[in-house]
Amino acid sequence: HSTFDLAQQPHRRYNPLNGEWLLVSPHRALRPWQGQQEAPDTETRPAHDPGCYLCAGNVRANGEQNPDYTGTFVFDNDFAALRDDVPAGDVNLGGLLRAESETGVGRVICFSPRHDLTLPEMSRADIRRVVDVWADEFRTLGARPDINYVQIFENKGAVMGCSNPHPHGQIWAQRTVPGEPAKESRQQLTYFEQHGRTLLTDYLAIELREKSRLVLENEHWVALVPFWAGWPFETLLLPRRAVPDVTQLTDAEKDAFADALRHLTIRYDNLFQTSFPYSAGLHQRPTDGQAHPEWHLHMHFFPPLLRSATVRKFMVGYELLANAQRDITPEWAAERLRSQPETHYKHPAA
Amino acid sequence: HSTFDLAQQPHRRYNPLNGEWLLVSPHRALRPWQGQQEAPDTETRPAHDPGCYLCAGNVRANGEQNPDYTGTFVFDNDFAALRDDVPAGDVNLGGLLRAESETGVGRVICFSPRHDLTLPEMSRADIRRVVDVWADEFRTLGARPDINYVQIFENKGAVMGCSNPHPHGQIWAQRTVPGEPAKESRQQLTYFEQHGRTLLTDYLAIELREKSRLVLENEHWVALVPFWAGWPFETLLLPRRAVPDVTQLTDAEKDAFADALRHLTIRYDNLFQTSFPYSAGLHQRPTDGQAHPEWHLHMHFFPPLLRSATVRKFMVGYELLANAQRDITPEWAAERLRSQPETHYKHPAA
Ligand SMILES: O=P(O)(O)O[C@H]1O[C@H](CO)[C@@H](O)[C@H](O)[C@H]1O
Ligand SMILES: O=P(O)(O)O[C@H]1O[C@H](CO)[C@@H](O)[C@H](O)[C@H]1O
Repeated sequence: HSTFDLAQQPHRRYNPLNGEWLLVSPHRALRPWQGQQEAPDTETRPAHDPGCYLCAGNVRANGEQNPDYTGTFVFDNDFAALRDDVPAGDVNLGGLLRAESETGVGRVICFSPRHDLTLPEMSRADIRRVVDVWADEFRTLGARPDINYVQIFENKGAVMGCSNPHPHGQIWAQRTVPGEPAKESRQQLTYFEQHGRTLLTDYLAIELREKSRLVLENEHWVALVPFWAGWPFETLLLPRRAVPDVTQLTDAEKDAFADALRHLTIRYDNLFQTSFPYSAGLHQRPTDGQAHPEWHLHMHFFPPLLRSATVRKFMVGYELLANAQRDITPEWAAERLRSQPETHYKHPAA
Repeated sequence: HSTFDLAQQPHRRYNPLNGEWLLVSPHRALRPWQGQQEAPDTETRPAHDPGCYLCAGNVRANGEQNPDYTGTFVFDNDFAALRDDVPAGDVNLGGLLRAESETGVGRVICFSPRHDLTLPEMSRADIRRVVDVWADEFRTLGARPDINYVQIFENKGAVMGCSNPHPHGQIWAQRTVPGEPAKESRQQLTYFEQHGRTLLTDYLAIELREKSRLVLENEHWVALVPFWAGWPFETLLLPRRAVPDVTQLTDAEKDAFADALRHLTIRYDNLFQTSFPYSAGLHQRPTDGQAHPEWHLHMHFFPPLLRSATVRKFMVGYELLANAQRDITPEWAAERLRSQPETHYKHPAA
């Protein structure tokens, strides 16, 4: 009697980057929410906090003192999940209990000495310094023969497990390629072998024609809500040119990256007039010494908020046991982000 | 200089049920936590809450009145993510934007009319009634030609997105087999074809010899922390006999299932002397009309708490972008659960 409508009816969408499917339930967006409310971050912070272990000049838990840095500051994570002093070894019981030792490094990157800022409140020039650190770290860590993958990411906001509001990100670099980038490697390689172009080059061309999922564009970068987005306001930030890693970006592309990061995070903050929590990170080629022309560098933003500064999406139950699932459509989310002002709600003059 | 030690050094473990790897960082368990604290559930609830849409006799959001049920009560979810009135249809743009309509049903199961109880506080006989509902629903839904998978689960606690403390679970049943059970199907089928026994039969035999990850046993069921557990106190509850779905359990096996559920959740509550939050659910054979002798029914418990009633594990950043990761070892978690008293801390006499 009726026809199938992506905006109204339950359906599945395919994620060509990881090969998995997502359940979309658009009609469910309006159910009442009587569950947990998040505490929005309303604290006013000083520019320097003597109790913060990331602020310039302060002493960390292990007794080391931070330098009086003025731009960015990078150091080895004092509680890293990965270490490089682990002896080789493995366990195998009947092919069912299998383990092998893993080596690697954990690094912390302070984005700014200012304890009271976040990326959307920093200048393009200051964010550009963060991009340069990402490139330097990727180059140095990636050159090590014992490191085959470098994961650069940021957890922002208490609701995303961030334990210190000082603007910072992390790097976990390790011997093996972790699950998610390994899936993206396989998918991108298959596509590249079949088409001679990267998967994201062709995907981006379609999205630039379709327009409904675009969030913002500049000369070198595009931010969009991917067709297969799992988190309510998930975005994908990618360069127009197929580049396997951040060290291969031109100077102009790095500036435009900083600019896109600034404007995307401003829109996020404006959406619910709150410091918008997320986990975000770069996906880049494995650092196994190969060129990986199939790899198209990109950045994922996974933000949990759904309806307001206090109501989030829970990835639980069905999502953990069965399948990723979302309630609002990616098209609707993109429209909401696209319609936000370009200046930060807290700093309208900037 | 030293030898590789699973209890002390970073390593990866393989999950044979889904074919993925997990990063384990045992040495990281002792890092200080300055991040978000959860609010433990300390509310005292009445046996009947006039404002609860799940309590007996109350009116739900859609105007329907619940019966005066005394055991369990099952109804169609008023805000189901799946519906069965969706017309067939699909979208395909360049193989990169792909969608297809999905049909299914959402059901809600009230475990008890008592608003103030949870599974660990219910009697074995009352939990047995819940097991019987699971079997009835699996049989009825699974018999429908348009339903090929039935996901039965429970979200417990506000931290796991549960919006009503009344003891209840859900069923999402649908046309396609979702991602997680599809992976487990492939892995179990490959193993069964190679060995002529289910993967979990052979895995369980090893764990019964090893003992270090066992939590509890009865005549027909075993609960253990799987070698590849991702969540801090994750457990796997499985029948000793390889049965593809809950309808094929004997009467004695169903009683023993209820008994194991009761004792496992009592240990969980005792661990941090709190109503222990989790997402839990059954994994069973697809209901596609095939026998699926490779499928070994089991139940996963994914609880987020890590160190106390207020400090949880966050699956963010590295976990979302790269790989599942845990800080304490499965062996240590099993030991903690094994050493809990068998009676509930709130009802020591029971
Ligand atoms: O259906 P509920 O309990 O309202 O909702 C809860 O469980 C669902 C299934 O696991 C999730 O999709 C929701 O995010 C969660 O809040
Ligand atoms: O390293 P942090 O910021 O203390 O910890 C946070 O990020 C890590 C990496 O995403 C996660 O494993 C932790 O669960 C989270 O709390």
